[in-house]
Amino acid sequence: MSVNQDDASQAQINEYLQGLGQRAKAASFTLATLTSTQKNNLLSTISERLADNASAILAANAKDVAAAKANGLTDAMIDRLLLDEARLAGIIGDIDNVIALADPIGKEAASQLLDNGLRLTQRSVPLGVVGVIYEARPNVTVDIAVLALKTGNAVILRGGKETIESNKVLSDVIRGALNSLNLPQDAVQLIASPERAIVSGLLRLDKYVDMIIPRGGQALQRLCAEQSSIPVILGGIGICHLLVDKKADLNRAVDVIANAKVQRPTVCNALDTLLIDQQVAAAFVPKVAAHLHSLGVKFYVCEQTQGYLSGLGFDITPADDESFSTEWLSLTLGIKVVADIDAAIAHIRQHSSGHSEAILTDDIHAASYFMNQVDSAAVYVNASTRFTDGAQFGLGAEVAVSTQKLHARGPMALDALTTYKWLAWGDYTCRG
Amino acid sequence: MSVNQDDASQAQINEYLQGLGQRAKAASFTLATLTSTQKNNLLSTISERLADNASAILAANAKDVAAAKANGLTDAMIDRLLLDEARLAGIIGDIDNVIALADPIGKEAASQLLDNGLRLTQRSVPLGVVGVIYEARPNVTVDIAVLALKTGNAVILRGGKETIESNKVLSDVIRGALNSLNLPQDAVQLIASPERAIVSGLLRLDKYVDMIIPRGGQALQRLCAEQSSIPVILGGIGICHLLVDKKADLNRAVDVIANAKVQRPTVCNALDTLLIDQQVAAAFVPKVAAHLHSLGVKFYVCEQTQGYLSGLGFDITPADDESFSTEWLSLTLGIKVVADIDAAIAHIRQHSSGHSEAILTDDIHAASYFMNQVDSAAVYVNASTRFTDGAQFGLGAEVAVSTQKLHARGPMALDALTTYKWLAWGDYTCRG
Repeated sequence: MSVNQDDASQAQINEYLQGLGQRAKAASFTLATLTSTQKNNLLSTISERLADNASAILAANAKDVAAAKANGLTDAMIDRLLLDEARLAGIIGDIDNVIALADPIGKEAASQLLDNGLRLTQRSVPLGVVGVIYEARPNVTVDIAVLALKTGNAVILRGGKETIESNKVLSDVIRGALNSLNLPQDAVQLIASPERAIVSGLLRLDKYVDMIIPRGGQALQRLCAEQSSIPVILGGIGICHLLVDKKADLNRAVDVIANAKVQRPTVCNALDTLLIDQQVAAAFVPKVAAHLHSLGVKFYVCEQTQGYLSGLGFDITPADDESFSTEWLSLTLGIKVVADIDAAIAHIRQHSSGHSEAILTDDIHAASYFMNQVDSAAVYVNASTRFTDGAQFGLGAEVAVSTQKLHARGPMALDALTTYKWLAWGDYTCRG
Repeated sequence: MSVNQDDASQAQINEYLQGLGQRAKAASFTLATLTSTQKNNLLSTISERLADNASAILAANAKDVAAAKANGLTDAMIDRLLLDEARLAGIIGDIDNVIALADPIGKEAASQLLDNGLRLTQRSVPLGVVGVIYEARPNVTVDIAVLALKTGNAVILRGGKETIESNKVLSDVIRGALNSLNLPQDAVQLIASPERAIVSGLLRLDKYVDMIIPRGGQALQRLCAEQSSIPVILGGIGICHLLVDKKADLNRAVDVIANAKVQRPTVCNALDTLLIDQQVAAAFVPKVAAHLHSLGVKFYVCEQTQGYLSGLGFDITPADDESFSTEWLSLTLGIKVVADIDAAIAHIRQHSSGHSEAILTDDIHAASYFMNQVDSAAVYVNASTRFTDGAQFGLGAEVAVSTQKLHARGPMALDALTTYKWLAWGDYTCRG
């Protein structure tokens, strides 16, 4: 943390990053050998120390909030970075949930005695060092550190500058807990400098860092995809679709669509584009629009939808290709009438971010066809897209929601923080 | 294939790549829905057509060989790109082996009925489009196309320019087989232009390509790691170590070391650095060096090893940090005396590429400690490093040997060409 924001030269940054990486990697080797009991004991200690240090944490957070107000951040952003006693208690309570989860490390699979004389097994092991780049949510600091430590990984945290005071205290408490148990405190390191060049450098630290998780918006995801020489888990961007098939139950459909759009519009699994089969469009479009309008939703619509809705007093804007490629994160919905299920699937293939898509239909053939043809992390029949979530999927924990296809897809749980190594025993065995 | 080497503008290249990607992605959706029988039937057709077109294939290969000779390529390189009747028969025979493998697509796991009312399952599906960049080995063209098609993936092939005539005929035969079964021939596309900007562009084609596999040397691996915005499977670089522990059986050790170094020195799982515990170094170093010397091995040695070997007539060179970070791919071996097992592990952590490491010991504690502490794709006790191979591991096929930790590690088989999607059924179910 010795790098100064203003005059940090590239050489200083490189030296800082090398040290950061070396310390993390060294710590990771110790973490990797801990038993489940030792790791759970560590998490309990962290939980206790966070509770003991609640007033210092809240005081640091108050500084962040004051700075945010002084800097004119929006109320929504301030709400995201705010901690109070109840929220902190929630963060601490979540640690107990993680303690209760099964440890995915040290399992052996694919064990066999091979013809060549080797006894071979595939053992699950920690990834090593995980780098996480995130925005102004102090809860992520604790969540990610706890999930990394539970799986025997070291972690490098780069949070948003808006929560720097909170993050410093939170990471200090976690490092203190490690230290109190004679464990390497560098298993958790916070990059406190807001210097942007440090992020670029972190993304090239492939000698020490095994995985990068960007938890933030589109710009951060693209930055990581384009600049990182370390494997990146892209995710958390959901341009989600729901198709009302010609055989959907139109009465029941309205509630599911409202749930997908309105229940929590600011998250990645909220509905962005409603596709409606033209055979039911005349009946359904005004009906669903009226209900959503009553819930505060405004619309970006195709020409045909506009025909059904104009003059009814709704907030409608003509949609273009760009609107249909937008993750709204608000009470806004794209609506498009499609010729048939194939046109809907083609639209999804063109515009989806590969997160979550749904079909509402009473036709088992349409349901099966949609599931087979749509290639997204989660595909639903007769359900809201809002279910794409680690807790809803019964995974116990959520590291991120991956929209890429390698390593992990959809809600990522503890397993996604592991890899495996092949172990083979011989008797001075040579290859023939 | 319409891009000309000399005057291809960036705009032309971009247009070419967009078309290539769109066609591959479109084909991938058809491939993904094929049954195992359909896919095996396709592979049989490819096998038959390759046999039927043997003379055209060998004639094209003869052009490549003639050009290679004219261009002064080494005998070793010419041998790599050479096809003859026996080699072609071997390539075709391997297709039958792939046909016999179980299809990993369409398996469902983690199926459960959730408290929220959803029935959830995780179905294995193809990755989609795989891009493979490789060097002058025409067998890779067939191998990779067959493995991709077996798993329902489309593939974009970018082989070395030295085998372009062979690759054109091979890919045309495969595309003809697809076409004859009314399957999209663009499931297999060859980039015939040697234009380097096409590789850079391919690495940024993340809208269409789901995974990049570079099969080649260090320079190609780094290029892909640094430039690709698509997930890359790095691999095939093995700086492999073997530790002779103080409790090793020194007589039996010699054969294992000779096997690891000499049996096939040009491949990634061959031994690069021999580490010897100082307690047995005086007895063992001259013994093993004499045997390896008789097999034609020359040595890069630490100072202590030099003391044991000087004046004995072996080919020795003083080693430095760089020699200990070299993948020799030849009858060359680094030798270093280490203070103890921890010093050996520290050396491995610093110099290994994470491929394969071995310990020779009769001490069960040392064996277990080494396996736990060494973090490479394959770790051996009392066996040669040469076993790190899909066939030797009983996997039936090998796509590549991954030295990264995400998605797949070590020998990658058909499973590594798959991902999964989450499928959920509700009854117009909303999130509470």
